[in-house]
Amino acid sequence: MDILIGRGKTARRAYGFDEIALVPGQRTLDPSLADTRVTIGNIEREIPIIASAMDGVVDVNMAVLLSELGAMGVLNLEGIQTRYEDPYPVLDRIASVGKDEFVGLMQELYAEPIKPELIAQRIQEIKARNAIAAVSLTPAGALKYGQTVAEAGADLCCIQATVVSTDHLSPAAIAPLDLVRFCQEIPMPVMLGNCVTYEVALKLMKAGAAAILVGIGPGAACTSRGVLGVGVPQATAVADCAAARDDYERETGRYIPVIADGGIVTGGDICKCIACGADAVMIGSPIARAQEAPGGDYHWGMATPSPVLPRGTRIKVGTTGTIAQILKGPAKLDDGTHNLLGALKTSMGTLGAKDIKEMQQVEVVIAPSLLTEGKVYQKAQQLGMGK
Amino acid sequence: MDILIGRGKTARRAYGFDEIALVPGQRTLDPSLADTRVTIGNIEREIPIIASAMDGVVDVNMAVLLSELGAMGVLNLEGIQTRYEDPYPVLDRIASVGKDEFVGLMQELYAEPIKPELIAQRIQEIKARNAIAAVSLTPAGALKYGQTVAEAGADLCCIQATVVSTDHLSPAAIAPLDLVRFCQEIPMPVMLGNCVTYEVALKLMKAGAAAILVGIGPGAACTSRGVLGVGVPQATAVADCAAARDDYERETGRYIPVIADGGIVTGGDICKCIACGADAVMIGSPIARAQEAPGGDYHWGMATPSPVLPRGTRIKVGTTGTIAQILKGPAKLDDGTHNLLGALKTSMGTLGAKDIKEMQQVEVVIAPSLLTEGKVYQKAQQLGMGK
Amino acid sequence: MDILIGRGKTARRAYGFDEIALVPGQRTLDPSLADTRVTIGNIEREIPIIASAMDGVVDVNMAVLLSELGAMGVLNLEGIQTRYEDPYPVLDRIASVGKDEFVGLMQELYAEPIKPELIAQRIQEIKARNAIAAVSLTPAGALKYGQTVAEAGADLCCIQATVVSTDHLSPAAIAPLDLVRFCQEIPMPVMLGNCVTYEVALKLMKAGAAAILVGIGPGAACTSRGVLGVGVPQATAVADCAAARDDYERETGRYIPVIADGGIVTGGDICKCIACGADAVMIGSPIARAQEAPGGDYHWGMATPSPVLPRGTRIKVGTTGTIAQILKGPAKLDDGTHNLLGALKTSMGTLGAKDIKEMQQVEVVIAPSLLTEGKVYQKAQQLGMGK
Amino acid sequence: MDILIGRGKTARRAYGFDEIALVPGQRTLDPSLADTRVTIGNIEREIPIIASAMDGVVDVNMAVLLSELGAMGVLNLEGIQTRYEDPYPVLDRIASVGKDEFVGLMQELYAEPIKPELIAQRIQEIKARNAIAAVSLTPAGALKYGQTVAEAGADLCCIQATVVSTDHLSPAAIAPLDLVRFCQEIPMPVMLGNCVTYEVALKLMKAGAAAILVGIGPGAACTSRGVLGVGVPQATAVADCAAARDDYERETGRYIPVIADGGIVTGGDICKCIACGADAVMIGSPIARAQEAPGGDYHWGMATPSPVLPRGTRIKVGTTGTIAQILKGPAKLDDGTHNLLGALKTSMGTLGAKDIKEMQQVEVVIAPSLLTEGKVYQKAQQLGMGK
Repeated sequence: MDILIGRGKTARRAYGFDEIALVPGQRTLDPSLADTRVTIGNIEREIPIIASAMDGVVDVNMAVLLSELGAMGVLNLEGIQTRYEDPYPVLDRIASVGKDEFVGLMQELYAEPIKPELIAQRIQEIKARNAIAAVSLTPAGALKYGQTVAEAGADLCCIQATVVSTDHLSPAAIAPLDLVRFCQEIPMPVMLGNCVTYEVALKLMKAGAAAILVGIGPGAACTSRGVLGVGVPQATAVADCAAARDDYERETGRYIPVIADGGIVTGGDICKCIACGADAVMIGSPIARAQEAPGGDYHWGMATPSPVLPRGTRIKVGTTGTIAQILKGPAKLDDGTHNLLGALKTSMGTLGAKDIKEMQQVEVVIAPSLLTEGKVYQKAQQLGMGK
Repeated sequence: MDILIGRGKTARRAYGFDEIALVPGQRTLDPSLADTRVTIGNIEREIPIIASAMDGVVDVNMAVLLSELGAMGVLNLEGIQTRYEDPYPVLDRIASVGKDEFVGLMQELYAEPIKPELIAQRIQEIKARNAIAAVSLTPAGALKYGQTVAEAGADLCCIQATVVSTDHLSPAAIAPLDLVRFCQEIPMPVMLGNCVTYEVALKLMKAGAAAILVGIGPGAACTSRGVLGVGVPQATAVADCAAARDDYERETGRYIPVIADGGIVTGGDICKCIACGADAVMIGSPIARAQEAPGGDYHWGMATPSPVLPRGTRIKVGTTGTIAQILKGPAKLDDGTHNLLGALKTSMGTLGAKDIKEMQQVEVVIAPSLLTEGKVYQKAQQLGMGK
Repeated sequence: MDILIGRGKTARRAYGFDEIALVPGQRTLDPSLADTRVTIGNIEREIPIIASAMDGVVDVNMAVLLSELGAMGVLNLEGIQTRYEDPYPVLDRIASVGKDEFVGLMQELYAEPIKPELIAQRIQEIKARNAIAAVSLTPAGALKYGQTVAEAGADLCCIQATVVSTDHLSPAAIAPLDLVRFCQEIPMPVMLGNCVTYEVALKLMKAGAAAILVGIGPGAACTSRGVLGVGVPQATAVADCAAARDDYERETGRYIPVIADGGIVTGGDICKCIACGADAVMIGSPIARAQEAPGGDYHWGMATPSPVLPRGTRIKVGTTGTIAQILKGPAKLDDGTHNLLGALKTSMGTLGAKDIKEMQQVEVVIAPSLLTEGKVYQKAQQLGMGK
Repeated sequence: MDILIGRGKTARRAYGFDEIALVPGQRTLDPSLADTRVTIGNIEREIPIIASAMDGVVDVNMAVLLSELGAMGVLNLEGIQTRYEDPYPVLDRIASVGKDEFVGLMQELYAEPIKPELIAQRIQEIKARNAIAAVSLTPAGALKYGQTVAEAGADLCCIQATVVSTDHLSPAAIAPLDLVRFCQEIPMPVMLGNCVTYEVALKLMKAGAAAILVGIGPGAACTSRGVLGVGVPQATAVADCAAARDDYERETGRYIPVIADGGIVTGGDICKCIACGADAVMIGSPIARAQEAPGGDYHWGMATPSPVLPRGTRIKVGTTGTIAQILKGPAKLDDGTHNLLGALKTSMGTLGAKDIKEMQQVEVVIAPSLLTEGKVYQKAQQLGMGK
């Protein structure tokens, strides 16, 4: 299927969620019959939605609420929460600063050192409320703070970078994280990512991942593609990595869930992710719109505070309802951003899928939702600009 | 023609109306010679246009007017008209509420129970004015109110849901509607839908449909694709279901018309639907713009009032003329939304098609009307923004 | 190359000018060496540009100016110029009316009957100033006024409708125009159109056309595609009809120029038309922007005044310079709408094409100028909205 | 891979940077290990970025700064700098004039003759500050001023036109520049361009180019495609010309760098250029945004002042930081326009490419960044227009 870009340079066509749609088959199902459970390591969740390890999305309280609702939130252990004893005045400053000062302020705020004692404290705060303590570190952070996380008794550890590989070249003086050893030694399931290809997904599974995160470049608060040129549209990335999961299971008997991460805004996006092969999704901006979200009305990427090459933008997402409404309804918005679980169950019912495995098999069509002239006309009508 | 989205996930490319155009052939025709008739069950109509069973589109009066003009309107039996003795104050409230309160108000208004006596009354009001009483129920509603509809003497019954199938799994306590039995027992033609695939279209025909409704996800007031990820672009859906119709006729001798439903805004859209194989179209927003439409200046989808997962948007469509002008002209607008019958006849003349069967055979090209830079330039000129 | 839209419906992909670009080869040329001449019947023109028979574009004076500059303008004999002794107050009314009254006013103004004596008078006014009198009639008009045109001594007659065919079915009472007989009997070259396919182009050539007009649906003031669903993107239409011209020449030795008509805005569009096989272009809106244009700041389509099904829009094109500047420069605008001949010669130089026949052979790439994110960024910069 | 546009006209699909993205492989790399060096003739640069020979981009001071930073700037010898002893009041006029007078003013200002003594003076001013004196002439200018450039001791000479070829037809009275002889006789490396095809790239290498410039039509300040219809999307053009470079090296042992020129705005664009085969890039608008740039807040194309056919637009690019920040950071913007070298190194690290040759081999996917509905939604959020 290779396409010639120019002499000697071929490429394949990759597809994003905006380019596909799901096709109802010959069976339908009452939504109440749809089973949406996912299991990562020893953790089973009713809602296959994980909140991203981003400072505007998950704090201790949000992690607890998500856990209670049947979902899960991952706490970023290298952000505001572990740099500041009281993170809320800091979050207020981020929300109040003007657009022009934002990057500078972020660089300043994230220059404050990470405090290992705060890492332990945040994990214990979550555990104290009987919730799942899922936490996230970069590979470099894992070298430094892995031991602390293990001792604090976290339930799940996520090693996450824009791109993760099992073969990382470092300058001579710096030893890279050995992912295999880390997975073996830390006493909890480890999610690894992000990756976008079959080969890397397979390597991460072989390294001991309990789940892999799939997605580079597609997120709302992510500008990897603009700044670095790097990215793979999600439908293709998820399908490729899901194929690695299936091949790995065939070979080893172990089933390693694929978590689609990035670019997911609506219930429809979640449904399409799973239809391409994902077992669950990781989402940021939809959760950032909850009134309980730590970011206030804002959401920003975790590469933004980079002192040298900030990437990612602060987005004003607003506040549209409670986290319960966003996950389980009842919806007060009709645009697909409330009652994400209800949307998934309704879609599964419409498509006749009894569980996530069946949902991964539904028929997909390529159907670009491009901005055609007709669409602009419809949009104008929706905005009350009827000609 | 399968395209690889990723390893192990293939899809075919589906096409929407914005992506096609019709090609004149070697013959042209005076528009007055174009025969646009369609027959559903025992009902023949001069104009192959059916108004959608939506509360902002069809009430008793609109059903009568459409019938008199040679078209047909379907009355929604599970909406405002059968929940309220006097629906007009309710419609006024819907039109007057602000955007933010809309979904909540709809959920409240549609919580009022459906009254079987109003079902009978509305049907009789239409019949009393010698018009065609075409009515619509959901599958669940058909179980409850089918008998009432039969007794009230309706002329045509439409069983319609976002997606309908002959194989629906329900919780143990609830028996699903048996479509075959329903079609056999109710003493009138039954239109079934919506569907988008060859296989389901064929099953609905075999179940006894007098016509099938084709279209999931493409409509202006429909957000199935955003909320559920579900949908098939209409050109492909119509062509596939028309192929089922032709195969079914070849096998049984029975001709079951295909009604394209959703996303149709202009005369050009109607022409393209038929060119892809439709026998008639069902339209909502173009009729909602008539001064006789019950929705006032507004149009909204029938999934909007869902108490759990509202979908669909209220659109301000405005009022552009009488229903007579919209269907038969003379047009006072030049954008293809007035004189829909005239547009169809002129297009058939231009394309040399003497009747709907010939129109289904005209040549189609794939010609995306994307928003290119040139188009934006032209649009800017049309808006008086000439550089 | 057929693509499956759905079961039983195939289509080919057609291309528009926004989707192609021209590729420089191994030779370049000084623009002064580029020969742009075209010959239609016995009329040779230095500039292969013909102004459209539209009331906002060509009046007697414009026809004379274009003729003097080396181009040609076609006078519409069924518009304002032949319905009103003094057309200028009428043109002023069109320019001064508001958007909402426009269609109604057009229908009223064009209800005034055509006067044969004004047909003769306009032709003689052009001839009196030693200019080429090229005029246009619809097929119906040709039946009525062909004789008048012949007697008034016009130099070229254009029989033009949205779509023209040699096989037109009329109601029994009305005889259609016999194109073959018309071409034989009228003592001047006849341009026929519009068409978009190889087969019809060939039939029009065989009917006796001195040139054919190619283009349905692509123009700025044309809404055939929206209202009727009819249209073929120009790059494909021109290439197909040019192939008919070449085959016809091979068979008969007669060379019938192909005139691309519709959707042409810039010099680049003209160059692309010729590169796809056109011998010349017919343009409306670029000429409507001349200070000598009869439409004032406006341009509108000739289907707009239809009493039953008005199509086409009035566009505010503004006034950007003299017709001399627009055709031959020097340009005072840098957007490709001034010095169209200079642009053509510079493009031919860049592409190494010595004459129109060589320009028809230059390499083309498919390169959609879609509105990508990058383009929007660039546009924002151009508009001074740099982030 | 030829696609049929219409009968007898085929074309291949060409790709632009907005249509591709880069795919991480199995290895990653610490950015500090990425070697970005490029060598042109005898000149080695750490940063493979060359500032365009445009009057708003490079003056003597900017050339010196770029040289000191490890990059290079090319001085336009046929612009403001060599027409005016003191160019700064002239640049101020360009920045202060309104949009409508811009083209006329440019035509007036560039009517001032070029002064050979200023050519020599500018080169010596650069050399006096120990910087690389890279200069640019058109082919016509090379005939007139080549000797002056040689005597003044420039380090690198760029012969650049919109399109350059080794086979240029001129009117009898004018001898075209003999590129082969020019390259042989001038005592410095010569960069030739622009070109977009394998064949022409190969001919320019055979003519003696030390590097070739690739790109016609894609730049922000360039309107070749609109005015002339001419252009090739950059990903395809670069890949084709890189193949010529590799074939030429295979044959002769000489490695002639390919410089991608035009349309590059962000770090991501630079990365994609190299991934398609470029050795370095030439950029205009990103440098024009430096506070040291001579254009003030503006940037304009070098075809704009044409007295007959001005092309190219003045763009308000604004001022976003120092040239050091733009090239080497630390970035104060998160949109990919600051720290271009850092972005390249980070991208190379992410993709596991140790040097430019490895970066040319990374995997590419076709992944159009089209404005889909989802993207518009995301953009609206970024602009604080959250629904």
